Amino acid sequence: MLDEAMRLAMASSELVRGTTSPNPPVGAVVLDARGEVVGVGATRPPGGPHAEVVALAEAGDRARGGTAVVTLEPCSHHGRTPPCTEALLAAGVARVRYAVSDPNPKASGGGALLRAAGVDAEGGLLATEVERGPLRAWLHFARTGRPHVTWKYAATLDGRVAAADGTSRWISSEESRAEVHVLRTRIDAIMVGTGTVRADDPRLTARGIPAARQPLRVVVGEGDLPPGAKVFDDEAETVRVRTHDPDEVLAELVARGVVDVLLEGGPTLVGAFVAAGRVDRVLLYTAPKLLGAGMVALGDAGVATITDAVGLVVEEVSMCGPDVRISAVPAVLNG
Amino acid sequence: MLDEAMRLAMASSELVRGTTSPNPPVGAVVLDARGEVVGVGATRPPGGPHAEVVALAEAGDRARGGTAVVTLEPCSHHGRTPPCTEALLAAGVARVRYAVSDPNPKASGGGALLRAAGVDAEGGLLATEVERGPLRAWLHFARTGRPHVTWKYAATLDGRVAAADGTSRWISSEESRAEVHVLRTRIDAIMVGTGTVRADDPRLTARGIPAARQPLRVVVGEGDLPPGAKVFDDEAETVRVRTHDPDEVLAELVARGVVDVLLEGGPTLVGAFVAAGRVDRVLLYTAPKLLGAGMVALGDAGVATITDAVGLVVEEVSMCGPDVRISAVPAVLNG
Repeated sequence: MLDEAMRLAMASSELVRGTTSPNPPVGAVVLDARGEVVGVGATRPPGGPHAEVVALAEAGDRARGGTAVVTLEPCSHHGRTPPCTEALLAAGVARVRYAVSDPNPKASGGGALLRAAGVDAEGGLLATEVERGPLRAWLHFARTGRPHVTWKYAATLDGRVAAADGTSRWISSEESRAEVHVLRTRIDAIMVGTGTVRADDPRLTARGIPAARQPLRVVVGEGDLPPGAKVFDDEAETVRVRTHDPDEVLAELVARGVVDVLLEGGPTLVGAFVAAGRVDRVLLYTAPKLLGAGMVALGDAGVATITDAVGLVVEEVSMCGPDVRISAVPAVLNG
Repeated sequence: MLDEAMRLAMASSELVRGTTSPNPPVGAVVLDARGEVVGVGATRPPGGPHAEVVALAEAGDRARGGTAVVTLEPCSHHGRTPPCTEALLAAGVARVRYAVSDPNPKASGGGALLRAAGVDAEGGLLATEVERGPLRAWLHFARTGRPHVTWKYAATLDGRVAAADGTSRWISSEESRAEVHVLRTRIDAIMVGTGTVRADDPRLTARGIPAARQPLRVVVGEGDLPPGAKVFDDEAETVRVRTHDPDEVLAELVARGVVDVLLEGGPTLVGAFVAAGRVDRVLLYTAPKLLGAGMVALGDAGVATITDAVGLVVEEVSMCGPDVRISAVPAVLNG
């Protein structure tokens, strides 16, 4: 029952991903004393109520003596909103289960505070799922101070991202492209270099999804861009970051409240991020095609010999239509 | 019960793969009248008995009134051995179930002959599994007259098969390499170009497996080779084929009784085979590593633009230790 409630909280939080940064996209479920779901909530955009408060508002009096299930340890500090621990105590919940402890020292201690107030509060419920899932980017940001970077690319079985004549539409299947558009609605920013803008003139928007929230478009580098480039249209905001240093780029993004970034750049930009240890997840769509010529995904990353290869660990492999989707993370966590 | 018997027959046939060419590696199981397994057999090397005969010999009198389960339609012609249909009739089996009909007009008709003799004989049992599994290469050979070619390679997530300095030991994991050595014991021949011999000096043997049967080593191309190259050692037979034309190479292999070939060559040789439509299966071990420089797997295959990419279909994805194993076959069957 608690596992099920946590999965519902996770699903609820997925729906608000991309709208909460720099706050975490948290999900919460309130069960009444008999274990019935009486409230579901997720973090509202910055300045709005946290997930617990949203779920408690729906539950009303039925929360009394019940259980709150939350993906992140309830906060105990006054930020832009009052502490969630206060709301939980005021609602009279008897039990709180959360997945992940808050790594932010300012916000942590919520579990201990609740226990001190006589609530049966405990963390660790489906912690791994939540850490790898909806809270991955935010936890990375909370721990490192840097946005989480997912390098996404589509390549053929022989590792090409474009054909000999430069054409790349479409390497991957309609199913994979549709999935990437959904992914784009759930991240804060999408990043390419000036070379990709000049070569492909991409729109970098989430398409095919009604009323989709658009990510911030980020163009990295000092190269000139044609004024008519599609990234300058009105479909989403675009920012240029005129440096090639990954950490300078990421610092600029932090200043703009960005926590979760999708890197869709070409070999040069991605090479710089890989070399700097600033790729936190690799998301590859392998299309069952062969080209035998054309551009590859990754340029110079400072690796000269096989024993110096950047080591990753595959965390998930699955099919996406006819393509193979591989998600991998650094073998040694980027610190 | 019949499915189970067929799976046992398949497993039995897997053990003889690589030892039966140009005959098919067939497996057979005999059940007595009560359905108990009383005989298991697989094709012996050319000139030796077929699978049915081996299984019937083990079953003896207990075959009478029982069932024979065979991966391939029993042959009805006199080759180097008497027809299996005769052996089945002599043993008095009441029922025969086979997976795949024999595509060879000389050998087919066994099912009809058995039915005419009053045996309840029927094909199609686990046909797809057998076609894709133990009989894949032989069926390809029977239908096209060409050996079945599996292109096997190991690449990083960014599609490299060697680092910038040419090192490639080891791209893939110990688990993947061990699996490839098993694979080598089950194929007839292993093929590379002269460039790979000069660059890597591979042994091209199955290692780590006690008393392993060694595949024929085939070196394709006209380039000079150092006389001390490891392919010329005594561990297995080696043949040089001095042409670059895939069909000439394959014809030479047919003349040597080769049905199932593993292509482990470099970009040039593989490019020629892909361009000619002579790769029947792609077996890729993707290692979760990034290099950003170095050799790619596939050279010029005559594809200039994305819409002309060689289309494949993924038939299996699985993990092999830390690596992702992808098996893909042509979207349009070769030949």
